[in-house]
Amino acid sequence: MTDFIEIAKNAKVSSLHAASLDEKVKNSALKKMAEAIEAAKEEIFEANKTDLELALPLVENGELSKATFNRLKLDENKMRDMVAGIREIAKLPDPVNKKLLVRELDEGLTLYKVSCPIGVLGIIFEARPDVISQISSLAIKSSNAVILKGGKESANTNKKILEVINSALDKVDGFPKNVIQQVFTRQDVGEMLKCDGYINLIIPRGGNSLVKFIKENTKIPVLGHADGICHIFVDESADLLTAEKIITDAKTQYPSACNSVETLLIHENYPHADELLAALQLEEIKLIDKPESWAHEYGDKILAFKIVKNLDDAINHINKYGSGHTDCIITKDIPNAEKFMNNVDSAGVYFNVSTRFADGFRYGFGAEVGISTNKTHARGPVGLEGLTIYKYRLIGSGQVVSDYVEGRKQFHHRDLTQI
Amino acid sequence: MTDFIEIAKNAKVSSLHAASLDEKVKNSALKKMAEAIEAAKEEIFEANKTDLELALPLVENGELSKATFNRLKLDENKMRDMVAGIREIAKLPDPVNKKLLVRELDEGLTLYKVSCPIGVLGIIFEARPDVISQISSLAIKSSNAVILKGGKESANTNKKILEVINSALDKVDGFPKNVIQQVFTRQDVGEMLKCDGYINLIIPRGGNSLVKFIKENTKIPVLGHADGICHIFVDESADLLTAEKIITDAKTQYPSACNSVETLLIHENYPHADELLAALQLEEIKLIDKPESWAHEYGDKILAFKIVKNLDDAINHINKYGSGHTDCIITKDIPNAEKFMNNVDSAGVYFNVSTRFADGFRYGFGAEVGISTNKTHARGPVGLEGLTIYKYRLIGSGQVVSDYVEGRKQFHHRDLTQI
Repeated sequence: MTDFIEIAKNAKVSSLHAASLDEKVKNSALKKMAEAIEAAKEEIFEANKTDLELALPLVENGELSKATFNRLKLDENKMRDMVAGIREIAKLPDPVNKKLLVRELDEGLTLYKVSCPIGVLGIIFEARPDVISQISSLAIKSSNAVILKGGKESANTNKKILEVINSALDKVDGFPKNVIQQVFTRQDVGEMLKCDGYINLIIPRGGNSLVKFIKENTKIPVLGHADGICHIFVDESADLLTAEKIITDAKTQYPSACNSVETLLIHENYPHADELLAALQLEEIKLIDKPESWAHEYGDKILAFKIVKNLDDAINHINKYGSGHTDCIITKDIPNAEKFMNNVDSAGVYFNVSTRFADGFRYGFGAEVGISTNKTHARGPVGLEGLTIYKYRLIGSGQVVSDYVEGRKQFHHRDLTQI
Repeated sequence: MTDFIEIAKNAKVSSLHAASLDEKVKNSALKKMAEAIEAAKEEIFEANKTDLELALPLVENGELSKATFNRLKLDENKMRDMVAGIREIAKLPDPVNKKLLVRELDEGLTLYKVSCPIGVLGIIFEARPDVISQISSLAIKSSNAVILKGGKESANTNKKILEVINSALDKVDGFPKNVIQQVFTRQDVGEMLKCDGYINLIIPRGGNSLVKFIKENTKIPVLGHADGICHIFVDESADLLTAEKIITDAKTQYPSACNSVETLLIHENYPHADELLAALQLEEIKLIDKPESWAHEYGDKILAFKIVKNLDDAINHINKYGSGHTDCIITKDIPNAEKFMNNVDSAGVYFNVSTRFADGFRYGFGAEVGISTNKTHARGPVGLEGLTIYKYRLIGSGQVVSDYVEGRKQFHHRDLTQI
């Protein structure tokens, strides 16, 4: 049995060392990791085969979905993507040690706001073994330590991948131990969620029910989103072809994605409503005008729709039933678009563009930690920056506060350009 | 009896309106607020007198401390500071609607990362009625709605001040109702802490036990700090006079402040240890070399001290017993200072300067929401920026993801300078 607190303590110690790792060491660790996974490909496939064999009867008796089985399965393509993903992260700029502010408070007294890692991340994910290498790379690049808990269906694959990663990291000069650790039991999850003394951020990667469970059972900040109830509002002046194209893309390009549209709102005076709905049905989208709930994520080619009185009605509907993920207006009316983007309280507010663009890679972040619907820390698609915070370094030459309080000295607060 | 959920719902609706307030309207609201408080000065003193009369017997029988009584008491000076504080906040730049990133993803497809309010703030504070005008001003400037819960000792004063504020806000054209609301009972606090559906951030303003209680009893993000266990490490090469001056300031200039030093660590080879300790005693600092706990906040002219073997020993002590607030090294050795600032995991890491500088005004933020020891969202002294998050606006012209996935189009991710 693993002693979770011991693992958490080791992670904390490791995170303090990782915090001052040189960029070169981190990138070299990532390159070694990629090489090691490439070299151990067959062993990893072997471990994955064991998991698949154990999973197959569960698929047959209906305990495990075919979709989960497919996510569990590693093939040459996924393996290549895993390795390429690590190398891509190595190429990204270091998110740590960035000077966010340099301000001379007074002669010889300079304040630096510098980005730094958060500390220890707890990652809970379902049956996708490729998450391990991705999250490990993101953690290394951002100088955080991480404790991973994967789905039990992929336990053999996860174990093997981490073994390969850690034996590669062991060979990197100056790279601390225990940066990447793994736990396996449900009990460990319970301990992780309670471990606010050592774990600074929890990132769930999985379905709604996993994320909801985690959010409801921990005081540790959680980065992520449960639902993705995205809306598209077709305004009175919307161009029909634009609406048709965007909605089709947002609903059919990848229906199970969190940034797919779930609810279509149409202005009651929109002259092409019937044509639009007919066109969507031709795209094999099933339209529902009396859904059981307006806050349901179909994850399929099903689209709830509603006729609304006006823009305000649409905005209110979205703020009431939406999940604060990504919502779009299709219109030719710029003031309406402005109002929509100002008043809809979502991470992404879109104007004449598919909701499917809500993605870290599409935003040009080079990596994606996840998509957050939080209102603090990080919102929307989160890149490496979301795994950092900052500290203030104040460098003086014997200054004391009494001199300023008693008027012998004054602050001049002069921002310095990058030095 | 107040119906807390009703208040929270009103705050949420109000926050959605406040989000798109024009800077001019907000500043005009702040000016009206300042004028109204000035004009209603005598009424406010009258209400305060009632609170003081009710509190006096409690001070006499020992139920209320003299310090709390003093904080409760408003006088001409505090009133002037309150009003001046509101006017200062009006002068600060608008923290909302700042373009944090403008990136052309492709021709005619532009991403804007724009700062926006968090939403609804819950503020729980103790017997300091001046907090109301300060927090109300910060909330207005940052376009957030706020629910205030003050100490029961200042209930009459709080009620009167908010009455004055809200009747001023009512007269501001276009300013929404219910931006600033107040609750009064202990039961309301319980409801507030459970209200994660409507409240986005809790800010406690008060002593350690209040902050600890709140952190332990809510899943809503809490901005603040419980303890302020700040350290100063005197390295082998420290200049004696610098050490003496900094430590004296950090301990005696305002001993009950959270950024005062509580523990002094001295390198075992420091040649002037005895002189230093003697000098501190001459400043009436009581030195304790065997404290019951290394994690105690004295809030008085008492200083725990320990001889440590070396820099690593000092760093480990601080990371183990500190509260991640502000810690300082006094040294002439730049690599040691660098190592200290890299490896100490605190919001403020200082080199040859008093810990008392950890303050939003001293950092030049123009306002202070509080000091945070969190590892996410905001850390260290928090200015108005800490009351904001951001949203992504994506402005397109009919773009769909399938074109990019299927290779018909490519992202070019070109960052645009401020437009």
